[in-house]
Amino acid sequence: MTLRAAAAALRARQTCSVELTEACLAKIAERNPTLNAFLTVTEDLARERAKQADQELARGIDRGPLHGIPIALKDVFRTAGVRTTCGSKLFEDYVPEWDAAVTQRLNEVGAVLMGKTGLHELALGITSNNPHFGPVRNPWDPETIPGGSSGGSAAAVASGMAYMAMGTDTGGSIRIPAAFCGLVGLKPTFGRVSRYGVMPLDFSLDHMGPLTRSVADAAVTLQAIAGFDPRDDTSSRRPVGNYLPDENASLDGLRVGWPENGYFDRIAPETESAIRRMARTAEALGARVVPVRVPDLAAINTVARVILHGEASALMEPYLETKRHLFGADVLALFDQGRFLRAADYVNAQRLRRTMQQEFAKLWDRIDCLFTPTTPMAAPRIGDATVQLGDAVEDVRLASTRLVRGINLLGLPALSIPCGLDARGMPLGLQIVTRAFSEALLLRIGSALEAAAGFPTLPV
Amino acid sequence: MTLRAAAAALRARQTCSVELTEACLAKIAERNPTLNAFLTVTEDLARERAKQADQELARGIDRGPLHGIPIALKDVFRTAGVRTTCGSKLFEDYVPEWDAAVTQRLNEVGAVLMGKTGLHELALGITSNNPHFGPVRNPWDPETIPGGSSGGSAAAVASGMAYMAMGTDTGGSIRIPAAFCGLVGLKPTFGRVSRYGVMPLDFSLDHMGPLTRSVADAAVTLQAIAGFDPRDDTSSRRPVGNYLPDENASLDGLRVGWPENGYFDRIAPETESAIRRMARTAEALGARVVPVRVPDLAAINTVARVILHGEASALMEPYLETKRHLFGADVLALFDQGRFLRAADYVNAQRLRRTMQQEFAKLWDRIDCLFTPTTPMAAPRIGDATVQLGDAVEDVRLASTRLVRGINLLGLPALSIPCGLDARGMPLGLQIVTRAFSEALLLRIGSALEAAAGFPTLPV
Repeated sequence: MTLRAAAAALRARQTCSVELTEACLAKIAERNPTLNAFLTVTEDLARERAKQADQELARGIDRGPLHGIPIALKDVFRTAGVRTTCGSKLFEDYVPEWDAAVTQRLNEVGAVLMGKTGLHELALGITSNNPHFGPVRNPWDPETIPGGSSGGSAAAVASGMAYMAMGTDTGGSIRIPAAFCGLVGLKPTFGRVSRYGVMPLDFSLDHMGPLTRSVADAAVTLQAIAGFDPRDDTSSRRPVGNYLPDENASLDGLRVGWPENGYFDRIAPETESAIRRMARTAEALGARVVPVRVPDLAAINTVARVILHGEASALMEPYLETKRHLFGADVLALFDQGRFLRAADYVNAQRLRRTMQQEFAKLWDRIDCLFTPTTPMAAPRIGDATVQLGDAVEDVRLASTRLVRGINLLGLPALSIPCGLDARGMPLGLQIVTRAFSEALLLRIGSALEAAAGFPTLPV
Repeated sequence: MTLRAAAAALRARQTCSVELTEACLAKIAERNPTLNAFLTVTEDLARERAKQADQELARGIDRGPLHGIPIALKDVFRTAGVRTTCGSKLFEDYVPEWDAAVTQRLNEVGAVLMGKTGLHELALGITSNNPHFGPVRNPWDPETIPGGSSGGSAAAVASGMAYMAMGTDTGGSIRIPAAFCGLVGLKPTFGRVSRYGVMPLDFSLDHMGPLTRSVADAAVTLQAIAGFDPRDDTSSRRPVGNYLPDENASLDGLRVGWPENGYFDRIAPETESAIRRMARTAEALGARVVPVRVPDLAAINTVARVILHGEASALMEPYLETKRHLFGADVLALFDQGRFLRAADYVNAQRLRRTMQQEFAKLWDRIDCLFTPTTPMAAPRIGDATVQLGDAVEDVRLASTRLVRGINLLGLPALSIPCGLDARGMPLGLQIVTRAFSEALLLRIGSALEAAAGFPTLPV
């Protein structure tokens, strides 16, 4: 059941928030020991809030589509009174006294927090093999990874432990787990959703967004969390749009960009055919597919990595000096690399970023959206360090991030939606990218494709 | 004669642009061999434009207060067809094919370009001892420096070679020469004047502004050059104000901040008494002086230096590797230092910058403007490496920049106006700082003080 279906059932008195919450708690009790999706389950709090939601709804107080709905937060969103670990030993016992902006907004609209979801250490990397809290497992196949770093959020939603879970995305961390777990993952435009109170990995690449079972669910969540926040100095004052897509939206006249370079190099044949199928679906809905050359992906990814290394290391430096023993080895190595990056290289990366943003923006004269695979392949197995793609053997982390990381550098909105299964029955993802602050269009495209193609679902 | 007086005389048919231009050319012929204010004199071009201005004015085409007025540009503003050296051997023979945005706007309003003014090598440093083009000398005393890096612009205006000269200010380079040469120097808010086509020293500290003989002259210049420019991605879309101050403006109710810390440490006693005199003048005009504690100046300056080093070195890196022999020794040493700055330190400097901007902004709840000395002392002698300030011996460059550099980091508008002479008869400067994009207020304050206190003038 989707978030919106649950919301409709609540209003039709076919269920109540307490019932939805108890069902999720039961699912957590059943599956979390295996999946490790939650680091902290806020059972008492959830029950209390569900009861309150039911009372409010009974009294005619309706806070909107998230009212009474069980949700989860990646364990980087500060939650007053609830431990927020960031997946790190450093913050193992950190209990914030205040809420992140997103936490606050979700509370205000009456969402029921089920708990805090697992992630890769400090949200860096993608394997979800957290050395302190153990790996999160993919509900589609517990021997595979859910993708990262918002892997716990994806596992929670895909397995029915919550209807929506918030993730963060610095180099693909919402879209990758969405693809690997057969979910919708939305990375909004930089500045659209407040970063206030989210434990940062990077100052200019971090984005906040939902993982859900439908595009409309992502839309109602964005509607609740989008908007200007003076406490986040990168927050945009642009007015918030109407994100909820029309259910019968056509794609008439839509120009779908099909990248001729970069995005289809070294990808699984099944991925390519799944994306082609979605392009044909778009055509059947009235869209026109326009082949385009896109700016060099490898260059964009390199610049994004340089910026990430510089900014993340600056953030972590106080801990790198005095608390080295509290870091996992791979994350420590990444931060240490960044510490010796030169300022000139970082500054030049920021200069290149501007040029790349300008270059990429030229695409919007010719197309309205870009279709790409989210990841080259479906979820790898836990512990696999490399993945075979055609003749090439590639590092799992690099392979998983290379089609999504660049969009963080550009700050553009991107949506990953399920687009089929591979031969093993594991989900594949289509990434749709549109121009800055065009989330309404992005969600309309996703929703039309969803209605036409349907999403594969994991029985939960 | 001020720019505005010349503009009035033009319109009263008491003079013509050709006459003004010839008088400036005569002054250049007489004084430039000593002062070295101009690197390039555009004699033929100036005569042609002056003639054209006279013809236009005779036909009733009036392009506004700069129409037919002899002006000069620091040799970092690109001028189509006119050599633009940046004070460097690297660009000794560089003749751009296009105009900087400021050049373009000044052309459009009919200003008559007399030539390109000298500066410290690559606009870095303040001594004006350019190793390739020789030192610029101060018209008040040719044995002293005019200040830098816009020293040629200041010397040109102070000596009557032009009515206005554009400077650039990365760490005080407009305000310092204004103070040393008894002129008005305006550094507008970051984003107010387009940087397009100006050879950059730094991406986030460079500002463009005029050096003039009166506050109203600075105002009419700002009016001509301010405004959004899509070609400069830091350009602001804020509407341009009406900058021309009312001639009879009072300062009734104005809250003048008097810094209790930082700004009056290690300054010449004459400087302090000159600033105190200006505060009393402001009080006589209706203002109220409010003692305030300001954020730590040394910290702000340090952060500004780190950012400057990182960004300037990134800019110069291609040349530092292959064309080292074309740099002067001191500038080369500065750039080389910057090359090994770590990205983490640069990123942390940018983080501190935000905090400092927020801290400083709190001052505007209690005051409308801040009064500080522009420099601790009047112009040092050419060749002096140090200056004695009370018991302390201080590097000339550090002493000259320490009261102004921080304002570049904050991006705030600042005006330096003359505020008296020292015992040697050399001018001193008052720096007035206001909140972002409040140039109209800033110029009104400066103009009221000018009307009440008068500016010392150098007979030209």
